[in-house]
Amino acid sequence: MQIDAVDFFYLSMPVVTTDADGSQDALLVRVVADGAVGWGECEASPLPSIAAFVAPMSHGACRPVGASVVGQKLDGPNDIRRIALDVARNSMDLLQAAHTFSGVEIALWDLLGKVRDEPVWRLLGFRSSEPKIPYASLLFGETPQETLDRGSAAVARGFRALKFGWAGFGEGSVELDAEQLVAAREALGSDGHLFVDAGQIWREDVDAAAGRTAALERVDAGWLEEPFEADAYHAYSLLGQRTRVPLAGGEGAHNVHMARNLIDFANVGFVQVDCGRIGGIGAAALVARYADERGVTFVNHTFTSHLALSASLQPFAGLVNHRICEFPAEPRQLALDMTTEHVVPDADGEVRAPDAPGLGVTIDTASLEQYLVEVEIVAGGRTLFSSSQHSLSLS
Amino acid sequence: MQIDAVDFFYLSMPVVTTDADGSQDALLVRVVADGAVGWGECEASPLPSIAAFVAPMSHGACRPVGASVVGQKLDGPNDIRRIALDVARNSMDLLQAAHTFSGVEIALWDLLGKVRDEPVWRLLGFRSSEPKIPYASLLFGETPQETLDRGSAAVARGFRALKFGWAGFGEGSVELDAEQLVAAREALGSDGHLFVDAGQIWREDVDAAAGRTAALERVDAGWLEEPFEADAYHAYSLLGQRTRVPLAGGEGAHNVHMARNLIDFANVGFVQVDCGRIGGIGAAALVARYADERGVTFVNHTFTSHLALSASLQPFAGLVNHRICEFPAEPRQLALDMTTEHVVPDADGEVRAPDAPGLGVTIDTASLEQYLVEVEIVAGGRTLFSSSQHSLSLS
Repeated sequence: MQIDAVDFFYLSMPVVTTDADGSQDALLVRVVADGAVGWGECEASPLPSIAAFVAPMSHGACRPVGASVVGQKLDGPNDIRRIALDVARNSMDLLQAAHTFSGVEIALWDLLGKVRDEPVWRLLGFRSSEPKIPYASLLFGETPQETLDRGSAAVARGFRALKFGWAGFGEGSVELDAEQLVAAREALGSDGHLFVDAGQIWREDVDAAAGRTAALERVDAGWLEEPFEADAYHAYSLLGQRTRVPLAGGEGAHNVHMARNLIDFANVGFVQVDCGRIGGIGAAALVARYADERGVTFVNHTFTSHLALSASLQPFAGLVNHRICEFPAEPRQLALDMTTEHVVPDADGEVRAPDAPGLGVTIDTASLEQYLVEVEIVAGGRTLFSSSQHSLSLS
Repeated sequence: MQIDAVDFFYLSMPVVTTDADGSQDALLVRVVADGAVGWGECEASPLPSIAAFVAPMSHGACRPVGASVVGQKLDGPNDIRRIALDVARNSMDLLQAAHTFSGVEIALWDLLGKVRDEPVWRLLGFRSSEPKIPYASLLFGETPQETLDRGSAAVARGFRALKFGWAGFGEGSVELDAEQLVAAREALGSDGHLFVDAGQIWREDVDAAAGRTAALERVDAGWLEEPFEADAYHAYSLLGQRTRVPLAGGEGAHNVHMARNLIDFANVGFVQVDCGRIGGIGAAALVARYADERGVTFVNHTFTSHLALSASLQPFAGLVNHRICEFPAEPRQLALDMTTEHVVPDADGEVRAPDAPGLGVTIDTASLEQYLVEVEIVAGGRTLFSSSQHSLSLS
């Protein structure tokens, strides 16, 4: 096959707020090769990501992503890996390229799986899709009571694992943070997994983070996520020496090395990878293997659609010891409307990567029309991108 | 003062080639605050970088760069640092933001220096602008003879230090690479500094890199630059154990942590920072101080204009032990035309950060008109950026 077309669809809720909720817009990618179709999603700012695909070349190591993708051969997983290496080299100096390519790469796997009538996880070499414990990823409430209510609602829906984060945690007093944590644990009960996401709030201030570890230990937090800026490995490793709560991070990694470095130098116990940022499913699978070999737990980072969720389950689908899965519990309607099928917990409350060709989800193109944001990018008198040339319905 | 306007100018040579020559286009930034003007340059793909300034917000941690800059107070260096922290947090998930903000940040320092009638290096706390040894940054020739000719021409212009790189080095046979290195050393003579830039060619293949170290040692290479992908710290540290040639890297760092990590975990002997990527002059100055405290040499990464060169000299202007300076020896005409003044080697062949307000260079707006690439970005029916609203001449 040959990659004939790559289409981008910028989708957005009518109103986007400053909530730390990444499901408010989306960049959907469609790849067409010899008539076969695959879909992917960038976990990224849509407009710069589209621009990174179509931008004029700046020099040999700063080419647009499209230059390494369109027209390329696609006959198997090795072609996806080859294209990924080309993008890494040819777009070395185009920072946004990693986010752009991530969605494209996911679409390439989906396409290949559909053509071969195999789920992506099987193309990755796994024999089975193992059950994962989904955790509901929630924002702290404005008050401990609100946190308790949110957590209780998620538990009522069947979740046995909860993650709370953002919304002021770590910014106010240690006492208020402790009350929030107690409320979160109360909602969940003593058995469930409770995770906490600090959202980089302490930047690199180890003492500020350490001020919260006693409270985290009291509620038996399963991990403390992103206490610091994504690349502040030194701070991570210092904090790790001061608490028994494992640290987690990795959503900011935009290449395999960055996630590995968190394992090697930041001593995280959980490495959290977003397929829509790190370079796609193949990149995430490399991290999953690396983590597995080193006794670190791989976890997906997913806050958006079930297309993204299926993609993010593939890289560790067959790894039985990696049981935790982030599940977008309260996404905006756009994210739910993206696919006809959803990844639904089974009777045990567990989820698996779909046992269907490709990513196992169908894009609900009719539902998505309402969310489309028209984009036009013109440079030097040339129209580099126009939504009018990218229709959701292929006919 | 208040930041009233930030204007972007996408400039390009009429023809852009696949040469690893970053001077073929440019993204120039102008900031206006209370009538005062400052200029900066992003070392970045222009179109995605502009998009990152004007993109609609995706969520609270994925806001456009502009949202943290326009309208902000600017009365001193601390305001620049505050804005930088805001961008890091508010644009956490917008990958291209670092490259976009770098040019803006440089312009903020230039503006502040001009208003205070002080060179930027003095605002950074340095008492003097120390002489640096400029090295001519050259691409290897297609043959050793061509490399010899290029090097000889640079030596004839007065350069006592040369760096060669890219153009196939490391991709072919070890013997050819060795011949290229011998030619480079022959051009320079036995006394001068010879540096080699592998341009990430071995990705993470330590053995491939180690195959060239004997040849590098024979020509007394001052450093081997970017043998591996920017974040492949593990490979760096393994190679470092196998050669006495110091390793260099850092141009890919887009925040302070990444450059520090190269020092802490990759054991580089030289950390090379591009102000136009790492987040600007303030970020680079933090790296320079960190390097200085750890016995690592700070070097600027500069391949473009003398605006970029002046900016890149500021962060280590007063550090006497950090003597080496990358000097764009063969830039395209666009880069030369950008400024009226140029940073010219003195009688000893050395250069200094200018002793004039701000960055000490004047943008030659009249000359640049010919290079302007008109850009228009429209999303959701709103024109987010139009070159027609950004005129090089302020009147």
